[in-house]
Order: sequence, then C-alpha cells, then structure tokens
Amino acid sequence: MAAAAAEQQQQGFRPLDEASLVAYIKATPALAARLGGRLDALTIKEVGDGNLNFVYIVLSDAGSLVIKQALPYIRLVGDSWPMSRERAYFEASALQKHRALCPDHVPEVYHFDRAMSLIGMRYIEPPHIILRKGLVAGVEYPLLAEHMADYMAKTLFFTSLLYNSTTDHKKGVAQYCDNVEMSRLTEQVVFSDPYRVAKYNRCTSPFLDNDAAAVREDAELKLEIAELKSMFIERAQAFLHGDLHTSSIMVTPDSTQVIDPEFAFYGPMGYDIGAFLGNLILAYFSQDGHADQANDRKAYKKWILKTIEDSWNFLSNYGINTKMGMGKHTCPLYTTAFVELWNKHKDGNGEAYLPPIYNSSELLRLAQKKYMTSLFHDSLGFGSAKMIRRIVGIAHVEDFESIEDASKRASCERRALNCAKAILKGRRQFESIGQVIVHVQSFDRD
Amino acid sequence: MAAAAAEQQQQGFRPLDEASLVAYIKATPALAARLGGRLDALTIKEVGDGNLNFVYIVLSDAGSLVIKQALPYIRLVGDSWPMSRERAYFEASALQKHRALCPDHVPEVYHFDRAMSLIGMRYIEPPHIILRKGLVAGVEYPLLAEHMADYMAKTLFFTSLLYNSTTDHKKGVAQYCDNVEMSRLTEQVVFSDPYRVAKYNRCTSPFLDNDAAAVREDAELKLEIAELKSMFIERAQAFLHGDLHTSSIMVTPDSTQVIDPEFAFYGPMGYDIGAFLGNLILAYFSQDGHADQANDRKAYKKWILKTIEDSWNFLSNYGINTKMGMGKHTCPLYTTAFVELWNKHKDGNGEAYLPPIYNSSELLRLAQKKYMTSLFHDSLGFGSAKMIRRIVGIAHVEDFESIEDASKRASCERRALNCAKAILKGRRQFESIGQVIVHVQSFDRD
Repeated sequence: MAAAAAEQQQQGFRPLDEASLVAYIKATPALAARLGGRLDALTIKEVGDGNLNFVYIVLSDAGSLVIKQALPYIRLVGDSWPMSRERAYFEASALQKHRALCPDHVPEVYHFDRAMSLIGMRYIEPPHIILRKGLVAGVEYPLLAEHMADYMAKTLFFTSLLYNSTTDHKKGVAQYCDNVEMSRLTEQVVFSDPYRVAKYNRCTSPFLDNDAAAVREDAELKLEIAELKSMFIERAQAFLHGDLHTSSIMVTPDSTQVIDPEFAFYGPMGYDIGAFLGNLILAYFSQDGHADQANDRKAYKKWILKTIEDSWNFLSNYGINTKMGMGKHTCPLYTTAFVELWNKHKDGNGEAYLPPIYNSSELLRLAQKKYMTSLFHDSLGFGSAKMIRRIVGIAHVEDFESIEDASKRASCERRALNCAKAILKGRRQFESIGQVIVHVQSFDRD
Repeated sequence: MAAAAAEQQQQGFRPLDEASLVAYIKATPALAARLGGRLDALTIKEVGDGNLNFVYIVLSDAGSLVIKQALPYIRLVGDSWPMSRERAYFEASALQKHRALCPDHVPEVYHFDRAMSLIGMRYIEPPHIILRKGLVAGVEYPLLAEHMADYMAKTLFFTSLLYNSTTDHKKGVAQYCDNVEMSRLTEQVVFSDPYRVAKYNRCTSPFLDNDAAAVREDAELKLEIAELKSMFIERAQAFLHGDLHTSSIMVTPDSTQVIDPEFAFYGPMGYDIGAFLGNLILAYFSQDGHADQANDRKAYKKWILKTIEDSWNFLSNYGINTKMGMGKHTCPLYTTAFVELWNKHKDGNGEAYLPPIYNSSELLRLAQKKYMTSLFHDSLGFGSAKMIRRIVGIAHVEDFESIEDASKRASCERRALNCAKAILKGRRQFESIGQVIVHVQSFDRD
C-alpha cells in the first residue's frame, strides 16, 4: 500500500532549485501568505548542512519561511545510497504531532506536499543557531536543560501507554512502521557499522585506528549493542523524534526549537533521551580541543555537565534532592517533568498502570521508580551507542571535526570513546545522573 | 482503513445455523470438494467449547471439514462484550503463515470468507482430542514436548529479526497491529483483572477468597506484572500464536496440531512459550484432584514435569547435558531447536546479529546464551501470569474445574497459585528449566 502510494506520487516529484522554488511558492497560497504576498524580491539561501536534504531559507520584506525538500537518496553519500522521499511525510507529521504536544519547542508546519516531499515551515530566525555550533563556540544556554526536559517529557509521555489507550497506540505504531527505511539507516550506522569493517566508517587516523579496531573486537560491547539494537527495532514504547542530537536543536538563550524529526518512529524512549545526553557528553569531551589562552573552557565544561544533570533530573523528577554529582539543583515549579505528567494523568486513558491496580501512592511511586530506573539505563545505553558511532562510524560531529590538530582531536575523541564504552557496559550500575557525571569526569584526562 | 473495510463487510455477514451452513457449503466449491461433493447426507455437529466462536464439524461419507465462524461478541460472556469479527481474518492468516513454517503441527485452511468471518479448515479427526482433556484424563503423549518445541522454535524463529529483514518484520507488525481488540482482551484478562476487583473475576470461593485478595494486594507482584504487560504490548519480537494454552492444541500419541490463533500478533516470544509451559504446570498441580485408588497419578505427574523440562530444552537446545532436574534427556537429531535454526540461518537476511559483527563461534554462542536466557526469564514470567489468571480471573481451566470437591480443588489451585507467584517474582534467578522443575515440586504439598 505504502509502496503503491509512493509510486503514484513519483509522477508529481521534481527537485526544486531557486528559480523553480519561487514559482512553487507563488502557486501555493499557504506559503505566499507567510511572505506577506511580497514575492517579487525574495532572498533565498540554501542552507542544508545536514546529511539528507535540501533546505532553503526564503525571506521577503514582509515574512519568512523555510522550504525543506527530501531527495530520493542520502545527500551526504550521494545517489549511490537511495533513500525514500517518504521520510518528508514522516517528518511533517512528526512535527505536527509533537508541536501539538509541545508548541513552545517545535516549529509550525505551514504546508506539506507529499508528492513533492516538500515541507514549508517556520523559519527559525537569528539569533537562533544550531545548538551544536553554540556548544563549539562555548555559549551557555541557561534554559536548555529545562526546555529539553519539557520537550522530551511531553513528547514521550503523551505518546506512550502511560497516556494512550492500547488501540490508539497500536494505530500510531502501524502508521510509522512504514518509516522503516529511516529506521534501517539508523540500525546500520548506529548499531552495526561501528562494530564491523564497513565502507563508510572513518576515524581520526592513524591515531584512533587501534581504538576503532578495539571496538570491533570487543565481545562484551557487541553483546550489549545487540540488546540495544533489538530494543530499538522491537520496542514501540513512544513516538520518538528519532535523531535528537544537538544539530537537531536550534537555540538562543531564551528559545529552544527541535527540528528534523524525519527518523520519527515508535521506539524506546531512551533512544531520544540518550541521543541528547550522549551528544552533550561529546560536546564536553571536545572542549579541551577548543580551549585557548582567552578561554580555557573549564567553566563551560562545568556548565555542560550541569546541563546534562539538570536535563535528566528535570525530565525524570527524580534525584532532585540527591547529594551526588555537581551540586544542588532545584526543579522549577513550572517544569512539566515526566513523573508529574504521569501523576496528573494517572486517571486518564493510559492502560499501562490502571488506578484500581496501582491503588496507593506508595505503590504508584514504586512503579514510577522502577519505570524511570529502566528508562535511565536505556538512555545511558543508547546515549553511549550514539557517542561511539560519532567517533568510529560514518557521520562525525562538528564538536570534534572543528578541532584542526588531529592529534589533539584524537585525544578528545579517545576519552569520549572510552567513557562511552564504559557507560554502555556498566549502565545498569548507575543509580543517578550524578554518578554518571562523576564517571564522565573520571575519563577527562589522558 | 481497517475500520472502513470492516464496515463494508458488515453487509455480507450473517450468522450460520446448521441449515444455512449446508447451503453455504453447497455454494462454495472449495468446501464442497473437501466433502467429495457428497453433500446430501452431511453430519453436522456444533462443538465450540471455547469462549469466543461457533465451530461446526461437517462430515460426509467422502470427506470432512470444520467451519469456524466468529460472532461480533465474546461467546462466553454474551453480546454484552462486543468483539470484532475481524479476529477470524487474523486467525486464518496466522494459520496460513504458521502452517507454511511448520506444516506438521498446523492444520490446513481450505477457505476463508472475510465478510462472513468464516474459516473452512481441516477437521482434526479422532482420536485427536484437546490436549487439556488428555491431561485431565492422565494420558501420556510421548512426542508432545518434541512437537511443541518444533512448533514454537519454527514459528518464533522464522518470524523474528533473527531470520527476517527489518523491512519485512515491520510490515508484519503493522498488519497485526489491527488485531488490537484481541490484544486488549488479553491485557485485561491476563494482566489487569486478576490484580483488581473486577466484575468477571471468580475463584473457588470461599476457600480462595483470601488468596485472591492477596494477589490484589501484592505490591511486588503488581510491579512485575506491569513490566510484563508493557512488554506484551510494546515488544514486537516475533509473530505469536497469542493464546498457546493446552486447549489450543489437539493431540494423539503421534500427532500434535495447534489451532485457534485468533489472538495472533507481534509480541514477545516468551508469551507463547510461557502459555504452553504455564498450562502444563497447571495440569501438574491439578493431578492430585484427579487421583483415585486406581491411579494415584504419581507417574503421570513425573511425565508432565519431564514434558515441561523437555519442551524448553528441545526448544532452546541448551541445558541438554545439564545434571539438574528430572534426569538425563537427549535431544533427538531431528529436533529443529531454536538455536539450531539460528546457526543454520545465521548468514541469511536476519538483521539482528550480522555475521561480520558476531564473527566468531564463541561470540555467537555468548550472544545466543544471552538471548535464550532472556527468553527463558520472559517465558517464566508470562507463564506464571497465565497460571495466576486461570485461578483468580475470568476464565478458568478444566484441569481444576473438573475436580468436583471444591475444597480439594482449592487446595490444588492454591499450590499452583503460590508456585506461580514465586516464579513470577523470582524468575531472573532461574538458570535452567531443571531448577524450575525442582521449584514446582517444592510447592506440591500443603
């Protein structure tokens, strides 16, 4: 059915360039209106710095928007790696679903054209920048942890069986099973290629050649990654963003906007949480490569660790009073943490924990503790896997890539890699994010 | 889409009685042919002793068949509990899929009429009887363990990511998400109702009233059941029968036929394995209620335990040389155990354990051990849950129900219940099925 639909839509597809893009906008009232109808002197910039798509910023003197178009292959690799354009449909629908749950942190979709694999959406204007670039530049975002905890808590809780009926849940699962090409890509680049010799793998050579080989020969690591890979494909726990790293987030000190959910699918919650936390840990380990006489980045590294710790604590609403880790943190009253949502909606349609069964506050608390502990360990596992693949797999991160001195870069990467391997193997021993922070710091030396 | 299709088909539906059944068969060549065209003196018997459907045996002097028709409610409860007739579609397709994988133990479907929710299939002729009735009668089935291990190994392995590509797997998952009404019924009667006060719950009263109340107040048990319930809904590990208890199996000493997969869905493998093993354990605990001067059932109880042990060992291909448990067991050469299938097909399309990653026989062996251990614990968990629900939930089993002396019945049931509770809570401590057998025996006294 999906294949037939995709084939039908083949006919209506043509890749746009700047000229044909203008014609398209003129012919599309929903887009023209966003530019105030002032279509004669548009400024158009192609800014797709990601791995997959073309992205145009379109400005008039009365408005702005972004046009994103998926091509039938992976841009990073070229047309040798075909990839269904239907990912644009999943991205658009995910933006719409997640925006309905968390409008503060998800941009608006103005227009979607399935045949053209084209999304017209809000231009997330300057001074917003990609979070990863801010992390490389050493910019602090005081609200980042709170915003991302809010985004993750809402998108994950409200799309899980804690909130939805089994019937609604299975409907969603069935719909996003069709985004399997994207899930397969993740399987390959996150859970498979780093653990075998693969065409597109690379690392900071020759410095990390032995480290990459060691990953491929680490039996314990490979047993753990198999478990995570199975969970990734089999466990439909919530509707995930699917690629929640620090380049999928745009920020200012006041605003946090999550973009690019084209990998959206029903999967284990820890995969989203881990992607975010793991990429912050990568940012942490990259800082020594960006330190100079003007800024030793020591204070910034503390801020990153605090952001990691706060993100989990705000999200989970546990460990707030813990004495471990970086210090004391209080959870702002307006934070909508996961467990708060659970308590608030415990008498709703969610079928996982029925009130007549989990019928005392003590029992519900125990159930929540068990659930969150399991989610914590999943998040650590997936986060570590995401770190490893960025060091020895196909797609690397600007955090490290922008360190020009290869020896210095390799040294930063090696610490991150060793840290990730240890977390992945030992994740079930961690009882709080504070312990993880201590662990991360212990790898921050040669 | 499914709802629309179902509605369209509403028009073509009419419940059959014996007279209209004959007319239906006469008008359906695929059925008429199975009766050798001898349609003028048919013998028809309604034998639906299950909870859900009408089942007719149809005999001519030249052939036979069974007609099974789903009604839009649960037969056991009546029309106060509506239930989609689409379950007949899922049953027919599951029979066809599982028969393709394991023709020795799955009957042939001759005809399926989706509008009528009607399956025409092989009449599983005498001396086949429902296994549960054989267990009540004390009949040994020397090939049962081997046959069921074969059935479970093949249906589970070949529908998992150990054998299939992620793309094919997700297609199947999406298709059977639509059988959600049946999954919801299971959720309710297996994972919810036994742990709360519920309209249809019953137990051997007054003897077990306190035991049933204790189940509802057992916090540890309720935390464990929540985990299993989530796994049941979220984890699409393989294409399951979905209701694999001893009344879904017809047997002679030489033949084992698995029927009634109307609950089929993609779920955790341990749910099928547990259903079978758990119902054998129920049969074990019921035997004292059937003992009399002619037969103390002691030898039969040993046979049941051996069947439980063999079933898991033949299935898993582990522990064959174990010294624990009931004695020595050798795995027949022609048994197609799960791990043998895995080894045989390790270079196929399965995406879970790619050969370039699991690239030594030692590493693959470790991966298999980890996988099978996890499957073992899942099976014990689900098996226990299935035992508990048969004692304090809505649907009870003939094993116990046929013990007329209520006090004696309650005593048998209590031992089974206590055994199940202990297994459910402590399942991760068991390292072999032999240990489970010892554990089961330890509950076999007042």
